[in-house]
Amino acid sequence: MSRWQPDARGRMLDAALELFAEQGYDRTTAGDIATRAGVTERTFFRHFADKREVLFAGPVLLDEVVVETVGAVDPEAAPWPVAIAAVREAAARLGAARTPAQAAQRARIVAQTPALQERELLKMASMTSAIAAALVGRGVAEPLANLAAHSAVAVFSAAFARWASGEEDRPFEQCVDEAASALRELT
Amino acid sequence: MSRWQPDARGRMLDAALELFAEQGYDRTTAGDIATRAGVTERTFFRHFADKREVLFAGPVLLDEVVVETVGAVDPEAAPWPVAIAAVREAAARLGAARTPAQAAQRARIVAQTPALQERELLKMASMTSAIAAALVGRGVAEPLANLAAHSAVAVFSAAFARWASGEEDRPFEQCVDEAASALRELT
Repeated sequence: MSRWQPDARGRMLDAALELFAEQGYDRTTAGDIATRAGVTERTFFRHFADKREVLFAGPVLLDEVVVETVGAVDPEAAPWPVAIAAVREAAARLGAARTPAQAAQRARIVAQTPALQERELLKMASMTSAIAAALVGRGVAEPLANLAAHSAVAVFSAAFARWASGEEDRPFEQCVDEAASALRELT
Repeated sequence: MSRWQPDARGRMLDAALELFAEQGYDRTTAGDIATRAGVTERTFFRHFADKREVLFAGPVLLDEVVVETVGAVDPEAAPWPVAIAAVREAAARLGAARTPAQAAQRARIVAQTPALQERELLKMASMTSAIAAALVGRGVAEPLANLAAHSAVAVFSAAFARWASGEEDRPFEQCVDEAASALRELT
C-alpha cells in the first residue's frame, strides 16, 4: 500500500482493528499497525499517542459532537429531547464512520482487555459529563441534568448493542430512537 | 482507642475518610489509618488489600445486594420496577451504613484522584452488569435488560447526588423513588 494513498488516519484505524482481532491487542505494536496501513511509525505517532489511542481517538470526537448538538437545539426544548438529540447525533456520526461489524470488532477487543474497558468507561463518563454540563449551560438544574445525561448515555449504550449486533439492518441513530422509546415504555 | 473495641472495620472506614480529608489521599498510609482506628497494621491488611480498597470494599457490597434483591422480587414484576427495587435496596443499605456527610466526603476524595475515579466507574459498571445479568436470569431479553440496568444506575447516581448534598433531610431510598419519578416525567 502506497504511503501517498489518501486518509492515512482511516487506514491506521482499519489496520489496528484487523491486527488486534488477528493477533490480539497485547501482541500488536504501533509498528505493526503502521506497516499494515502503509505508513511510517513516525506518521503513526503524529496521529496517536500509542496503540490504545487508536481505539479511542477516532473516528468521532463524541464529546465535541454532543456539546455542539446541545448548543444547536431550540432553546425552548425540554432537557430529555436535548439529551437524546445529543446521543442521536453522536450515533449518526459514528454510524457514518464505521460499519456495525467494525464497531462490534472494536467492542470485542475492548471487552477482552481490562485496561481498555476502564478507558471505555472513562470515555462514556466523559460524554455523560459533557452532556450534563451542556444542559446546565442551558439552565437545566442539577441533579436533573445529570439524570438526563446518564439516562441518554444508557439509551446510547443499548442502541449501540442493538446496532453492532448487525441483526437488523438499521442505522445507529434509528436504534437510538427505538431505545429511547423502549425506555419511555419501560419507566 | 483500644484494639479490643468492637467493629474494627467500621473504625477503619471512618479513620480513612477522616485522614484522606485531613491530609489528602496520597499522603495517607495504611499505617496511618490503622493507628487512627486503634488497630495494628496486620489487622488493617486482614480487612483490606490496600488503602484504596477502604473506599471501595465497604460498607455495602452493592453487587450482592442488587442480585439478591432482583432474585427476591415477585417473578411477575416488569423489568423496570425490578431494576429500581435493586438500586433502591442498595441505597437503603448504604444509607443505613453512612451519613450523607460521610458519603459526600468519600465522593469528594474520589473526585480528586483519577485512579479512584476509574475504580468508581468500574464499581458502577459492575453493579450495572450485575443488575442486567440478574434481569436476563429472570427472562428479560437484551438489550432491554441492559437498558433497564443502565437507567436504574443513572437513577441511583442522581439520587446519590441529591442525598449526599444534605440539602434535604430524606433517606437515600426516598431520593431513589424521586429520581425514578423524575426520569419517568423526563422521558
